[in-house]
Amino acid sequence: MEHIYAAVLAGGSGQRFWPLSRELKPKQLLSMFGQESLICQAVRRILPFTGDGEHVAIVTNERLFDELRNHLTAQDERRLREVRYIQEPVARNTAPAIALAAALFAAEDPEAIMVVLPSDHILEDGDVWRDCISAAVAAAEDGYLVTIGIQPKRAETGYGYIKGADALPEYSRGEAEPCVVERFVEKPDQARAEEFVASDKYFWNAGIFVMKAGRVLEEIEAAGGEVAHIAEVVRWIAEQEPAQRQGGEARARFESITPISIDKAIMERSERVAVIPARLSWSDVGSLLSLEGIAETDDDGNVRVGRGVDIGTRNSIVYTTDRLVATLGVEDVIVVDTTDATLVLDKSRAQDVRQVVEALKAQGAEELVQPKTSLRPWGSWTSLLSAQNYQIKLIEVKPGARLSLQKHHHRAEHWVVVSGTAVVSRDGEQVDVHANESIFLPVGCVHRLENCGKVPLQLIEVQVGEYLGEDDIVRLDDDWAREL
Amino acid sequence: MEHIYAAVLAGGSGQRFWPLSRELKPKQLLSMFGQESLICQAVRRILPFTGDGEHVAIVTNERLFDELRNHLTAQDERRLREVRYIQEPVARNTAPAIALAAALFAAEDPEAIMVVLPSDHILEDGDVWRDCISAAVAAAEDGYLVTIGIQPKRAETGYGYIKGADALPEYSRGEAEPCVVERFVEKPDQARAEEFVASDKYFWNAGIFVMKAGRVLEEIEAAGGEVAHIAEVVRWIAEQEPAQRQGGEARARFESITPISIDKAIMERSERVAVIPARLSWSDVGSLLSLEGIAETDDDGNVRVGRGVDIGTRNSIVYTTDRLVATLGVEDVIVVDTTDATLVLDKSRAQDVRQVVEALKAQGAEELVQPKTSLRPWGSWTSLLSAQNYQIKLIEVKPGARLSLQKHHHRAEHWVVVSGTAVVSRDGEQVDVHANESIFLPVGCVHRLENCGKVPLQLIEVQVGEYLGEDDIVRLDDDWAREL
Repeated sequence: MEHIYAAVLAGGSGQRFWPLSRELKPKQLLSMFGQESLICQAVRRILPFTGDGEHVAIVTNERLFDELRNHLTAQDERRLREVRYIQEPVARNTAPAIALAAALFAAEDPEAIMVVLPSDHILEDGDVWRDCISAAVAAAEDGYLVTIGIQPKRAETGYGYIKGADALPEYSRGEAEPCVVERFVEKPDQARAEEFVASDKYFWNAGIFVMKAGRVLEEIEAAGGEVAHIAEVVRWIAEQEPAQRQGGEARARFESITPISIDKAIMERSERVAVIPARLSWSDVGSLLSLEGIAETDDDGNVRVGRGVDIGTRNSIVYTTDRLVATLGVEDVIVVDTTDATLVLDKSRAQDVRQVVEALKAQGAEELVQPKTSLRPWGSWTSLLSAQNYQIKLIEVKPGARLSLQKHHHRAEHWVVVSGTAVVSRDGEQVDVHANESIFLPVGCVHRLENCGKVPLQLIEVQVGEYLGEDDIVRLDDDWAREL
Repeated sequence: MEHIYAAVLAGGSGQRFWPLSRELKPKQLLSMFGQESLICQAVRRILPFTGDGEHVAIVTNERLFDELRNHLTAQDERRLREVRYIQEPVARNTAPAIALAAALFAAEDPEAIMVVLPSDHILEDGDVWRDCISAAVAAAEDGYLVTIGIQPKRAETGYGYIKGADALPEYSRGEAEPCVVERFVEKPDQARAEEFVASDKYFWNAGIFVMKAGRVLEEIEAAGGEVAHIAEVVRWIAEQEPAQRQGGEARARFESITPISIDKAIMERSERVAVIPARLSWSDVGSLLSLEGIAETDDDGNVRVGRGVDIGTRNSIVYTTDRLVATLGVEDVIVVDTTDATLVLDKSRAQDVRQVVEALKAQGAEELVQPKTSLRPWGSWTSLLSAQNYQIKLIEVKPGARLSLQKHHHRAEHWVVVSGTAVVSRDGEQVDVHANESIFLPVGCVHRLENCGKVPLQLIEVQVGEYLGEDDIVRLDDDWAREL
């Protein structure tokens, strides 16, 4: 399967999951829906087909790139750390994003077959999935644009549907039996949705596609007009040196694209589209109601995760990450609690969390942007207190890992080691700092933190200074090469 | 008014206000109902009559004594810092507590007139109050047991009522016109409560009494039996040296008392009881519903205090101390949020918060006991993070104040000064630690922290050790004399 590539779409901002998600911790980074984050699940789902991590590209934007990369490079599994990244210069919906990946894959391998996957869905892994992708690859090799269609479980009006027609038995693999697509139907009304479910011919469009990269570009070109312009832009970008791909020229060209979805751009127009009906358990994790699935429901219909009690509470969801949350006599509510923010909502309003986010944005609430804990390739940091002239963080460094060689213009740092041993280089001098010892890093000193030990290093950092922004950092040397 | 004393009853545990109140921060210490805490308001209310703080006694128990004293000695007003404390050896309801205060006051001043005041109510201060106490003192001087009766505003079934009869015009002062009490009625049913309000002869019993201390003991003795035994016990305790008043013998005697309220013990039996009907704005701050009164109600019937937004929310109360709390589409709920715990309840269940507290107690939740921030006579501390082998606190020391000279057997401390200057004595050596400097205090070192400067001192304390309990402290010298 050497020609198989994957484009994992990870540009979503995840407003609907606030306060669990933040601008810099979108839904795809959340870990409560399974053993690991949704994006790690997505990458693992496709690795058996691509073989290695380097054939997987995370398609994202400039704002999220660093967080996604920090998240994936923090994983133990080598192939998750090896994935590559494609940055959309600006957001222009899915067609330009997928086309950009197609152009880059095609430039590398003219035979490239790309699997397009959302990064923030739940999808059952296993034999059925394996058969689906095998069948899809077979059809894609013959030039089909292939979609995976989920067997609908209910008359959902919020999804798009795909209608299947004649079978394509030559591509069947195991349980996966592709057929030609008759048409795509956007969000139907209730009556039509019920017909669709009853008919056995309609499937949910889960945004999973398998296509030759070259065919994607061909179909885009064939669409003509504004759509065809997408192909021009992405082909131009793919011809540039990597450093130029996020440059001003690339951005200007990408900005000239009219936003359009991949469905509208090519799927609904092409004559050669196949769907593989799949009996897969799937969820788009579309709202906080999805939390209902992550723990058992008690006798009163409540789902609770985290510390606290519910007295006289019914049909509610209480999710708390670390704090204590109690409920008394409420019904049909969702309480989502994180270290720094809490949301209490009626279940019927789960689709409207975006309104809360917009209102908080108008207030300038910083709790929309940054999560309190942030993974890094070398470990993690957690913000404990932010005041005007000082800030406290808990920093954890993995055995064998080190941070960049850095300095700050505006802040001094006091490090108190509470567990493990730190090896600190400070203006050329090297100092071992053991548990219950501390070290001072004055403003402007060039320093680096390293854990040479065998156990995790934990230290408390007290930053003192007049400006404490994350961007007051000059990286002189960095194992994690943030500047691409 | 040299003979006027006050007993401020402050033994309440305040479960009904969790999570705003804690075992060690009962309702009387809460500050949202006015400019300062309810107990400070209570003491200030009576100071114009007692003249100085030393004539005011806070009646409390061993568990709360330290917190109440820390709270009152942290106040700027000298007279609040000067109040005295009476510790009930064990809780035995109000009659023994008031009798103990009466015995101590009478031992000091045979002519003592005592005003008994709850520490956790809201009460309008001003001319009417002044007239009431003046009239009450006049009647008490003639041997009356005087109560203040609040003009009822609604047919409340949760309160006790006092029925007034013949006027006692000789004691009238301004608007305060005492009359003889005909009888006390415990919580009536709805129909009777409505009659009471309509009749104009019934008043709410707000637990405010003015009586000669000697008369209290006389009436208790006159009651005979188990009640009379109270007088024996409190007279014995009042004869002991202060150090003996909390000793084992005092405790054993106090334990032998059968719990009884002051109403049942003497008010309902005595022939000489007066009530002063008062048109005073009053609240017993009986449940979280009282939060409704602390801010303006918006157009949707919501009361909000603290950061966040409410979208499509109606008739709700959202109170948050420092975190961000948002609501979406809920109705008739109360959300109370503190640094470490959140309670979400239906308004109809405000009386049942105790059930939540009991359930959390069964889980061993530490959030029931200790507030995250605790006032001290020298300033305050705030717990920022507690882990197994380390703990982080923010410590604030007032200008000119110092902590005790102390040492710890199990923990070392790292202090990073973030604002102001600390003068630290460490094993005899004296060190100035300025902002952005730190100092290390190894296990066992004898140390003291002092703010000799003119601005508040703020420092971050990182404690490291295998045992981090508050009780690992040996105080060698203490300006605040915690050991009485």
